[in-house]
Amino acid sequence: MKAIAVKRGKEKPVVIEKPRPEPEAGEALVRTLRVGVDGTDHEVIAGGHGGFPEGEDHLVIGHEAVGVVVDPNDSELEEGDIVVPTVRRPPESGTNEYFEKDQPDMAPDGAYVERGIVGAHGYMSEYFTSPAKYLIRIPRSQAELGFLIEPLSITEKALEHAYATRSAFDWDPSSALVLGNGSLGLLTLAMLKADDKAYESLYCLGRRDRPDPTIDIIEKLGGTYVDSRETPVDEIPETHEHMDFIYEATGFPKHPIQSVQALAPNGVAALLGVPNDWSFEVDAGAFHREMVLHNKALVGSVNSHVRHFEAATVTFTKLPRWFLDDLVTGVYPVSEFEEAFDDDDTTIKTAIEFGTV
Amino acid sequence: MKAIAVKRGKEKPVVIEKPRPEPEAGEALVRTLRVGVDGTDHEVIAGGHGGFPEGEDHLVIGHEAVGVVVDPNDSELEEGDIVVPTVRRPPESGTNEYFEKDQPDMAPDGAYVERGIVGAHGYMSEYFTSPAKYLIRIPRSQAELGFLIEPLSITEKALEHAYATRSAFDWDPSSALVLGNGSLGLLTLAMLKADDKAYESLYCLGRRDRPDPTIDIIEKLGGTYVDSRETPVDEIPETHEHMDFIYEATGFPKHPIQSVQALAPNGVAALLGVPNDWSFEVDAGAFHREMVLHNKALVGSVNSHVRHFEAATVTFTKLPRWFLDDLVTGVYPVSEFEEAFDDDDTTIKTAIEFGTV
Repeated sequence: MKAIAVKRGKEKPVVIEKPRPEPEAGEALVRTLRVGVDGTDHEVIAGGHGGFPEGEDHLVIGHEAVGVVVDPNDSELEEGDIVVPTVRRPPESGTNEYFEKDQPDMAPDGAYVERGIVGAHGYMSEYFTSPAKYLIRIPRSQAELGFLIEPLSITEKALEHAYATRSAFDWDPSSALVLGNGSLGLLTLAMLKADDKAYESLYCLGRRDRPDPTIDIIEKLGGTYVDSRETPVDEIPETHEHMDFIYEATGFPKHPIQSVQALAPNGVAALLGVPNDWSFEVDAGAFHREMVLHNKALVGSVNSHVRHFEAATVTFTKLPRWFLDDLVTGVYPVSEFEEAFDDDDTTIKTAIEFGTV
Repeated sequence: MKAIAVKRGKEKPVVIEKPRPEPEAGEALVRTLRVGVDGTDHEVIAGGHGGFPEGEDHLVIGHEAVGVVVDPNDSELEEGDIVVPTVRRPPESGTNEYFEKDQPDMAPDGAYVERGIVGAHGYMSEYFTSPAKYLIRIPRSQAELGFLIEPLSITEKALEHAYATRSAFDWDPSSALVLGNGSLGLLTLAMLKADDKAYESLYCLGRRDRPDPTIDIIEKLGGTYVDSRETPVDEIPETHEHMDFIYEATGFPKHPIQSVQALAPNGVAALLGVPNDWSFEVDAGAFHREMVLHNKALVGSVNSHVRHFEAATVTFTKLPRWFLDDLVTGVYPVSEFEEAFDDDDTTIKTAIEFGTV
């Protein structure tokens, strides 16, 4: 079968031939439909994130997959089920408390591999196998865009953890700010628009000139675009308002610090970007004091697990069709897979198609 | 009646004479038993915190009070009830959503006054009045040390908010670190020792040489003393272990940043100290990355309200008698009140006695 992989020492992914995998006990065999591309894939390709599976010279990439079950292999799944796989799996050393507690998203380094990212092959191949318990059934109507379930699940978890921080009191948020107008930022903005909390005002920060398709989406969602080149995060309260909730999806290390100034009293910022080291001067006294005197919270969130994927399939039904159409700017066959990795100002979200239902 | 107040332009509190207050509708009249002294009182005296009640030239200080009801004034209280008052009250402009929702501890600046701290007279007087709903009945057995209920309530709230941040998953903390060996730090260490979470290892950070009574208390509680002059917070994992929970009670702005490195994966740090501005270089990239990749949380917490005081009266019963005896290093009559504000290496917690049961 065909697969898209990064090879040791190479700068770009290539199509390779691999044997079709055989499901082991407890695993199902899935025929891949589509696999989304995101920033993490670019980091894996650039060598800044991933790791090859033990003893191998290549890594099949891709972690945002949707497929159709072709061999349930005695699991509770049925042939023809449309499924989305989770990403984390036990490491070579075997299972551990995080998997046993069904919360591998809370596992530290070394206690997991991530398919398509670190230590385990991903889903950009015509077929893949997975333990059936890590395959989430989704409605057939979501098959086409099912590669969005994984990124949606990332925000489901972040919202769950962020809202948990505010669960000790009666919190009534009305304003939210998403930092980053990439595909995850836009998906999150659309989720917040559809959120039961019913934010009265939504903002999304980017650094693009008009006309720009992401700014169009932000405004069509009823949000306000904030250009970070004109308005740094800590100046947003002056030009707009304080934010009850901030979602950080850029990995820019000034954002967590500045967010504490931009938050309204009792607000929370969820942090999702993953920056490298960067030292600079910070008024840590003001940061500390503001956290305390206004009961603010910061919470980091990484990865997601089964219940977040399940929640994502429900959230998916609340997102407007025009939004999904505008968000997904390209779905490419394997023969044109390089197009899916091209990143220019008209690209928002791309996927590679391995087959159809 | 006698009261202890700071007067405008004066550097030290003095005893003044004031008329005994008359309870208004909904208020009870309380005869003061004892009032504790804490760091906030020292800040109020130094002028760095407080504010005088509108149109007055003095502020009666003290916010950690215990008293006995002498006039219930048609409230549900009874004459002879032992009570502890909460601290926040509506501002001059009247009540607001925070008081209506019964969470004034979540109110921002301007939406409250604090008795004995900012904008309203405190409890260091022979009698005080308070709305009956802000007087928490405590058992008669706690009357003597009832001035500890308010500081205990501060930690009850901080634990409530910190643990809420970890409520979205199955969290099983085993190590905890208290930053600060003042009276609040030591009270918190004793609370963590008595906590249902049953921490396996407890640490407390200070900057004192042995022999020292606070180090004795830490060790008698089964905790490990960490000298911050030898081991900064971010080096604690090397010399000891990573911490699931950190409680910051010093107001030293390096602590929140360093705590993120000292936390174990999925850990949380509660911030309580209130520093002034202080800018220095921070590896904000490492801070941000560590928050995200290990699902960490920081939560600020200030003040407390009725349910935290009620929880504190239960927690009080779990604290060992020797601990309370060792913690309270002096209770002084009004005639010797200056002694209660003296702060040397043998002073831990003091109170001023206005009367007995």
